[in-house]
Amino acid sequence: MADDDQVILLDFWASVFGMRVRIALAEKEIKYESREEDLFGKKSDLLLKMNPVYKKIPVLIHNGKPVCESLIIVQYIDEVWKDRSPLMPSDPYERAQARFWADFIDKKMYLPSRRIRTTKGEEQEAAKKELFEIFKILEEELGDKPYFQGEAFGFVDISLITFSSWFHTFETFGNFSLEVEFPKIIAWTKRCMERESVAKSLPDPKKIWTFSVERRRELGLD
Amino acid sequence: MADDDQVILLDFWASVFGMRVRIALAEKEIKYESREEDLFGKKSDLLLKMNPVYKKIPVLIHNGKPVCESLIIVQYIDEVWKDRSPLMPSDPYERAQARFWADFIDKKMYLPSRRIRTTKGEEQEAAKKELFEIFKILEEELGDKPYFQGEAFGFVDISLITFSSWFHTFETFGNFSLEVEFPKIIAWTKRCMERESVAKSLPDPKKIWTFSVERRRELGLD
Repeated sequence: MADDDQVILLDFWASVFGMRVRIALAEKEIKYESREEDLFGKKSDLLLKMNPVYKKIPVLIHNGKPVCESLIIVQYIDEVWKDRSPLMPSDPYERAQARFWADFIDKKMYLPSRRIRTTKGEEQEAAKKELFEIFKILEEELGDKPYFQGEAFGFVDISLITFSSWFHTFETFGNFSLEVEFPKIIAWTKRCMERESVAKSLPDPKKIWTFSVERRRELGLD
Repeated sequence: MADDDQVILLDFWASVFGMRVRIALAEKEIKYESREEDLFGKKSDLLLKMNPVYKKIPVLIHNGKPVCESLIIVQYIDEVWKDRSPLMPSDPYERAQARFWADFIDKKMYLPSRRIRTTKGEEQEAAKKELFEIFKILEEELGDKPYFQGEAFGFVDISLITFSSWFHTFETFGNFSLEVEFPKIIAWTKRCMERESVAKSLPDPKKIWTFSVERRRELGLD
């Protein structure tokens, strides 16, 4: 793509979905303008215009044209800026497997990870149990590979690593240690965090914790 | 791919997800062996082995290796047998748009279309209202184009057309006419049905109706 491409990202700092796009853009070294949306106030006219179906961030606006849904945006970025840092495997079968796992993470992780911090008692216990089942499947799939797709950091890693900025919050609300329960996942998290693209795209876990405590108070839970 | 490729599809005749794979295989003129799963009895050992995460059809087994999740399978088929009948647009932006709409259909259509035939009263009315909202968005997106991606039949059409074998059932339970409410969608349905790949992959709507009535009776609704 040309150097004078205009790239705008409609984002929200604490969003695991927004972070995915930030990492992909950083991996490809693409300059972009980030516009922070106020998810709890009025949505911007630009967001409503660019994502009329879901009215949600992230939205990537490339030369005026919007792309919505984080995993679709990451694939788009990989296909447009294909000359550097490939995120998808080149083999069709491995690509299908990468799509399967990214889709699994997309379908399974969000709801229990939201419930563990917005509920209490039995409901919170059920969310914890559900999260453990998902992490168990993911730890088995990771196995002894350095990254989910093998030797190289890629699409599946991007899909999951953004949740790690929330791990401290999940652990504190759920009263468990991911390092004890899922050591391979935590070792993989540390490996990913050594990449500048990841480290600079994820917010401080303490900031996420403060944000979560505030949300819980607003919900009247504590 | 070589002519001696072994392709097996684990399928269920009434599944809108299984039908998607059937259409893609027919578009590419790929010979395959279909194995019907008994979704209401015991799942086959092969299904449990090939899709341990979801234990669901469809599963495409290509030379012994499984691919799961219908939209991922259709993309895999398109990428492996890329020399004929392209299903995805060649332009990355159009490809992202095709993925967006197929994903929208995948996320939104199934639950209300299931509820409209497995509930009654207010719940059924709510499902009907939800289905109408989805069809409205899809009819606007289709507009005056012959197919969702433009001039050529493709990925988005495959994602949605399989529901058309259930339309008669939805209309009868919901007491409405899709032809009256969404004439462009119905004109598009007829256009798709002129393709042999679609016509031969979709079951007779009357058979789906009988199947649905039987399911309702088993659920004790009628």
